[in-house]
Amino acid sequence: MKLNADLGENYGNWQQDVDADVMPYIDQANIACGYHAGDAKTMQATLSLAKQYGVDIGAHPSYPDLQGFGRRSMSIPREDLVPIIHAQIATLEGMAKCQGLHVKYVKPHGALYNDMMKDTEVFEDIAVAIHEYHTQYPLMIQSLANNDRQIEIAEKYNVSLMYEAFADRRYTASGRLQSRQGAGAVLNAQQTLAQAKALIDSGTVTTNSGEQIHLKINSLCVHGDNPEALSVVKKIRMLLSD
Amino acid sequence: MKLNADLGENYGNWQQDVDADVMPYIDQANIACGYHAGDAKTMQATLSLAKQYGVDIGAHPSYPDLQGFGRRSMSIPREDLVPIIHAQIATLEGMAKCQGLHVKYVKPHGALYNDMMKDTEVFEDIAVAIHEYHTQYPLMIQSLANNDRQIEIAEKYNVSLMYEAFADRRYTASGRLQSRQGAGAVLNAQQTLAQAKALIDSGTVTTNSGEQIHLKINSLCVHGDNPEALSVVKKIRMLLSD
Amino acid sequence: MKLNADLGENYGNWQQDVDADVMPYIDQANIACGYHAGDAKTMQATLSLAKQYGVDIGAHPSYPDLQGFGRRSMSIPREDLVPIIHAQIATLEGMAKCQGLHVKYVKPHGALYNDMMKDTEVFEDIAVAIHEYHTQYPLMIQSLANNDRQIEIAEKYNVSLMYEAFADRRYTASGRLQSRQGAGAVLNAQQTLAQAKALIDSGTVTTNSGEQIHLKINSLCVHGDNPEALSVVKKIRMLLSD
Amino acid sequence: MKLNADLGENYGNWQQDVDADVMPYIDQANIACGYHAGDAKTMQATLSLAKQYGVDIGAHPSYPDLQGFGRRSMSIPREDLVPIIHAQIATLEGMAKCQGLHVKYVKPHGALYNDMMKDTEVFEDIAVAIHEYHTQYPLMIQSLANNDRQIEIAEKYNVSLMYEAFADRRYTASGRLQSRQGAGAVLNAQQTLAQAKALIDSGTVTTNSGEQIHLKINSLCVHGDNPEALSVVKKIRMLLSD
Repeated sequence: MKLNADLGENYGNWQQDVDADVMPYIDQANIACGYHAGDAKTMQATLSLAKQYGVDIGAHPSYPDLQGFGRRSMSIPREDLVPIIHAQIATLEGMAKCQGLHVKYVKPHGALYNDMMKDTEVFEDIAVAIHEYHTQYPLMIQSLANNDRQIEIAEKYNVSLMYEAFADRRYTASGRLQSRQGAGAVLNAQQTLAQAKALIDSGTVTTNSGEQIHLKINSLCVHGDNPEALSVVKKIRMLLSD
Repeated sequence: MKLNADLGENYGNWQQDVDADVMPYIDQANIACGYHAGDAKTMQATLSLAKQYGVDIGAHPSYPDLQGFGRRSMSIPREDLVPIIHAQIATLEGMAKCQGLHVKYVKPHGALYNDMMKDTEVFEDIAVAIHEYHTQYPLMIQSLANNDRQIEIAEKYNVSLMYEAFADRRYTASGRLQSRQGAGAVLNAQQTLAQAKALIDSGTVTTNSGEQIHLKINSLCVHGDNPEALSVVKKIRMLLSD
Repeated sequence: MKLNADLGENYGNWQQDVDADVMPYIDQANIACGYHAGDAKTMQATLSLAKQYGVDIGAHPSYPDLQGFGRRSMSIPREDLVPIIHAQIATLEGMAKCQGLHVKYVKPHGALYNDMMKDTEVFEDIAVAIHEYHTQYPLMIQSLANNDRQIEIAEKYNVSLMYEAFADRRYTASGRLQSRQGAGAVLNAQQTLAQAKALIDSGTVTTNSGEQIHLKINSLCVHGDNPEALSVVKKIRMLLSD
Repeated sequence: MKLNADLGENYGNWQQDVDADVMPYIDQANIACGYHAGDAKTMQATLSLAKQYGVDIGAHPSYPDLQGFGRRSMSIPREDLVPIIHAQIATLEGMAKCQGLHVKYVKPHGALYNDMMKDTEVFEDIAVAIHEYHTQYPLMIQSLANNDRQIEIAEKYNVSLMYEAFADRRYTASGRLQSRQGAGAVLNAQQTLAQAKALIDSGTVTTNSGEQIHLKINSLCVHGDNPEALSVVKKIRMLLSD
């Protein structure tokens, strides 16, 4: 079980210290490629931190929406979306090689990730993008109670899948995340740790209706963009080291 | 002697047919990398044309200035400019590999090119960028009556140089281009052809003061963004085939 | 009956002559405000042409999507979309006043227009934006066989409506446009003229199922971005002058 | 004597609390207009805070350079720069009027401000922009030991000037700021307070060569983007209230 986090999300003068804070505690950094965050210098700096801590790097492509941080769903036809994804992977890939690093996987960002998990056409757009890219990177997706539909499409395009779960979000019975609008959707520190422990120990999660479901997982997604969240990340790291 | 042209300079909905018109007649396409022009889909389309006609591809990085088409000089410190150049090369490089193509050289665009030829600090910024990139691409620069200063910096950073001349611009005695502000700075079709012929046959150009100077050249830069220019390109192509 | 056209859709170096060609023949120019096209200098130039020909100016706000020319639907919550619309109207309004001109109405662009006509929540977002703007500009929308839903929302927010029809698009029985995917969705020159004549003379249009429907219209939307389209615009102008 | 600060410099998801922290203590907010920072929603929020605290608002136009936060000098010809400045003032002006507020002055941002104070051609570009704008806003500039050159140009274009000094920067004998590269260029809290007091009490400042110079000032520029700076702003506010 690995820990992954979305990093490299500074832009120009807007700089926060999340990368330096979180990098020491994770295994996989999903690095912004410039379309929702991550100008060239930010990419360079985040890659350098990933190298320093021996963290795997993943391309974290987004809809082209800097103003909206890639969190707004956009309706983009496949022939436009595929090059948009290619360009982002390519940028990070070349920047990484300048530091002797190699991209290990692709994990879509924000609304593109959500759309991929909700809409099989978008999933297929992304599978095509991965398939037509010159190097066959695995695609990191959300582990659901049932990923058959995603697996079927991935097999059609020969795309390998990696599965992640979320430590700090409340699940529904289908293995999806409860909407942020609902009460209790985002777990507090103690709940996050308990959920992380159950996922690590037994691959199970207790849903908002009280039942336990099993999730196939390769990686836990964590967030460290405030002091409390960071402290939780450190504790999850210790769980994994036990 | 080769012919090179700046291509891939469409963006989103703003599409012109220059690429398709010019690609059949050139050897080297300098392809925009998204910072002055060239969104992802445009890059993909231009690379596909380059492949179809067996044209070498060069990365054509720019200052980050879409609104100004990279034609406005910007004052950017080296630690910012180097990743800006890396990101652009990387994007085109990865997009090219998706079509089985490889970047062959780097030629800066617009104001970045002009600043590089005028200001040795900017030349050194670019040499450092090329040097620190993971693959050692040659740098295409303007052939001057005397390129000693550029050669010295290039050797310091182990950068190979390629030299180009301009078919359609009036030269001064130092081998620089007469400012566009002055009368006669841009040659007409007949003058362009005559200048191209002299450059191809003997590596010489007649300057605005009437003297002949010698230029070391690997490539002639041509433009085909209007019907008359395109017709000149075709005639220069024929000169080279003789 | 007036003629309106989408103008000011150049950007930076990407310049076409549509504005100068079309402006002499229309009454209302929907001018891009920078979010899908129309940098500051383009706005200035288009406003100057509108002044020269005494053409009314409308703000033509868009989703923030230069790369996609505002043609991609985006999911933007009201609290974000309202200031996005305000900023665009404001920019054009102030630029216009520098030439002694005044914005006369607002007509959303591209995907924002389509979403507004399809989705009453988006219509309400726009009605709120118009309502909360400091000057109460009328909103130009598409005339449908039945605009009751739009009228209800507009009345709620005290927004005046202007209605337009499309000269060059095939209608369905509900007064909506047939999807561009289907055959015959875009009319040829002769069909466009005939449809324009029927709309001008009797406010009727023959739909793709052969029936005649009545549309309440203040303005006809025309396009002049190619020589044939421009020639049709001139002929429609003559119809109106009869 | 008034206090002014650069505010509204968030963008999209990159949000800091500077506006809310500083607004209660200043008289004039220089608000970003979207070209170096300040998307539409940020402008709206900052204007709302300015209204709440009765703070005057100034348009804070920049070179078009979001990635570089407007801190990189750009070489832009007058016919391009004037509409760039107009568009920014217009955007803020219209957004302000939606809240019943009125722009009171214009203060250029970052590299545009620096270039204006160093290069009389740029100063004239800005004077022209102010002159050709539909409302004659005063221009806030840096008070120097000798502003004759700026006054001459301003009078030529009928532009009123407002003068500001910097509380937290070391001055040279000409009344310019010592370069940030040199040691001691940025004052510590105690030095800043002392300099503010001298400027408020007697309009004098002690330069880096030890002499006292007199500066004509209407406003002191302060920064509150960290807790220590904010505490200094509060103390300067108290000096003014004495």
